[in-house]
Amino acid sequence: MITVNENFLKLQSGYLFPEIGRRVKAFANNNPNANIIRLGIGDVTEPLSPAIIGAMHKAVDQMASKKEFKGYGPEQGYDFLIEAIIANDYKTRGVSLESNEVFVSDGAKCDTGNIQEIFGIHNIIAVTDPVYPVYVDTNVMAGRTGQADNKGRYEKIVYMPCTPDNNFVPQLPTDKVDIIYLCYPNNPTGAVAKKEQLKVWVDYAKENKSLILFDAAYEAFISDNSIPHSIYEIDGAKEVAIEFRSFSKTAGFTGLRCAFTVVPKALKAYTKDGQAVEVNQIWNRRHCTKFNGASYVSQAAAAAIYTEQGKKEVRDIIKIYMSNAALIRSTLQEIGYEVYGGVNAPYVWLKTKNNMTSWEFFDFMLSNANVVCTPGSGFGSAGEGFVRLSAFGDPANVAQAMERIRKL
Amino acid sequence: MITVNENFLKLQSGYLFPEIGRRVKAFANNNPNANIIRLGIGDVTEPLSPAIIGAMHKAVDQMASKKEFKGYGPEQGYDFLIEAIIANDYKTRGVSLESNEVFVSDGAKCDTGNIQEIFGIHNIIAVTDPVYPVYVDTNVMAGRTGQADNKGRYEKIVYMPCTPDNNFVPQLPTDKVDIIYLCYPNNPTGAVAKKEQLKVWVDYAKENKSLILFDAAYEAFISDNSIPHSIYEIDGAKEVAIEFRSFSKTAGFTGLRCAFTVVPKALKAYTKDGQAVEVNQIWNRRHCTKFNGASYVSQAAAAAIYTEQGKKEVRDIIKIYMSNAALIRSTLQEIGYEVYGGVNAPYVWLKTKNNMTSWEFFDFMLSNANVVCTPGSGFGSAGEGFVRLSAFGDPANVAQAMERIRKL
Repeated sequence: MITVNENFLKLQSGYLFPEIGRRVKAFANNNPNANIIRLGIGDVTEPLSPAIIGAMHKAVDQMASKKEFKGYGPEQGYDFLIEAIIANDYKTRGVSLESNEVFVSDGAKCDTGNIQEIFGIHNIIAVTDPVYPVYVDTNVMAGRTGQADNKGRYEKIVYMPCTPDNNFVPQLPTDKVDIIYLCYPNNPTGAVAKKEQLKVWVDYAKENKSLILFDAAYEAFISDNSIPHSIYEIDGAKEVAIEFRSFSKTAGFTGLRCAFTVVPKALKAYTKDGQAVEVNQIWNRRHCTKFNGASYVSQAAAAAIYTEQGKKEVRDIIKIYMSNAALIRSTLQEIGYEVYGGVNAPYVWLKTKNNMTSWEFFDFMLSNANVVCTPGSGFGSAGEGFVRLSAFGDPANVAQAMERIRKL
Repeated sequence: MITVNENFLKLQSGYLFPEIGRRVKAFANNNPNANIIRLGIGDVTEPLSPAIIGAMHKAVDQMASKKEFKGYGPEQGYDFLIEAIIANDYKTRGVSLESNEVFVSDGAKCDTGNIQEIFGIHNIIAVTDPVYPVYVDTNVMAGRTGQADNKGRYEKIVYMPCTPDNNFVPQLPTDKVDIIYLCYPNNPTGAVAKKEQLKVWVDYAKENKSLILFDAAYEAFISDNSIPHSIYEIDGAKEVAIEFRSFSKTAGFTGLRCAFTVVPKALKAYTKDGQAVEVNQIWNRRHCTKFNGASYVSQAAAAAIYTEQGKKEVRDIIKIYMSNAALIRSTLQEIGYEVYGGVNAPYVWLKTKNNMTSWEFFDFMLSNANVVCTPGSGFGSAGEGFVRLSAFGDPANVAQAMERIRKL
């Protein structure tokens, strides 16, 4: 008899974005003339820049040529892209990497979801609260947790609250943990971690032979040069950390699918009897067995980001989003809201007023300003009383949304 | 302490294609003037057809337009592609599917590798021998097997020999099995399964509440109209089978990455205490949590295959490969080889002469004809004494390779 993986049945059914969709749809049906502005979902809105478009047309033409046609590429990605990544994203920050430490993929969601597979089932997982749900759900599916309680917190996972009191960077846990998911610049809070804050975690990981899974998908939005873009800017991090990057938000690739993951060769995991194993080799085996490379056209597009023209164009688009973020921040601060993030990240994290819950505030904003935000409680119980506003959006729409909120 | 998933350490290190690469490289170094013809790896060689190229240029232009830009699409794929798939690949064969039974992805390797995740760890797996290694390796990684023996066969997996005696379609196993991997047209043997042969398996699965994972990645190469393209052409198969399809070989998409998987809603798996669970919902949850959709450009390219022009162009390219297959078959038969496949599949399965092992024959062909084939033993111990020849290649090269072999 074919049995199901019963861990899937532990997953909480009410996922955040479908519920937002349901409420927005109901409101739109009842208010057909409302001009709803969506600052909820974190998807880019600006089209791809000319350097990227040009590179893609060229790649498409290659696929039409018998001589230049590309079939299966290396599962780990083409050298032309890996070399550009290392030279531009790492060497410039003082980090040296070898080409076989970088694995190109079709998305950071896939990579952050798949990475747990190569580790033992009894590792204790620690996540921040609030948190990007993929880290948690993929560990539930794998069987590293028990059931969820009535707050949606799964047994065996260590949740580390991130609040204004700790600047949204968690304290070290009191119980020993094996795998720590950190995301900076943070989704959803928009917080960043300074070098000395990350150093605390790297030191903890070295001392406890723990692993840090560092999601840096939003590093391109950092404006303060003292903030690290990579965890490998911290001494010793190569021995304890895997880093995830994505072109999705950096360059508008959410529809193209290209990202990469760095697995340093210095990183070790252990067998039950204490033998050290090179994680890079294990991930390579997983990657080659279950993945067949990212689209050549997407990889050619990604490489264009690293040309002089591409860099400038990408920076200009990021400026558009960060102007949105600045406007959201300043408007809400002016009218007396407690506001976090939005300076080095495309997300603004807003404390609700009058002790409204996240969902109460969501409904309030939808009904009164016709603006969609994301309830913070959807990212974890420490997100209760907050909402996330995304800076991805058309500047005119964002300005109109702020005008409406100001008038409330 | 971070522990590794020790199941990965059970994997056999000597993977087939790297070893082929090593031997070919050594031969080329010692024989710098040899013009080596590769009929080993199953990668396409013809460029993409004009309809596909046109659709991709159009999609790239959309990505440059603020109005038509595509960010995140549905994880399951765009409706325009799913509808074309259902209308052209299934309705024409008498199979009706609902749109949410089709999941577009970035490759059949990924899908056939990932699907096992949603089933319990104690299911007994059955595979054919020889077999596409991904089915086995992903179950090893998940922990559904014991160690490998000296023939490379993993404990707990049921291997079903496919030989000339059974026309390369396995007999029902004597021990009860829960998950059966079948691939027809077959990689590597080039065999096909008739309706009545598949019916035996569907009946077995219904009787035993087993699951068939049916890999139909090569269905476009079927020339005999009585051979089923889909397992759903067999009555009742929707209750017991998942089907995998790919655009890789059908339309030359190995570098573009687009495929799909059909999970019918009628398919159930069971909890340990016998409760039925809809597999479609579980796979949907997995797909949405760990995957973010295939590239829009690749999906637009795939949809172009289903236009009148696209269909004709794709058929013409398949004809090129199948002419190669016919030439390989006829040449080898003429000179007295025992030859299988190559009529409804792009692979020819060749019995070696003089009791040579697969690797001995590989070396013989490489040294004497400078032709690369794939040793059958690399696909499983029942492949010993066979090699696979791929019909993917330039016709002039294939003709030259056959000329050389004829002269041996």
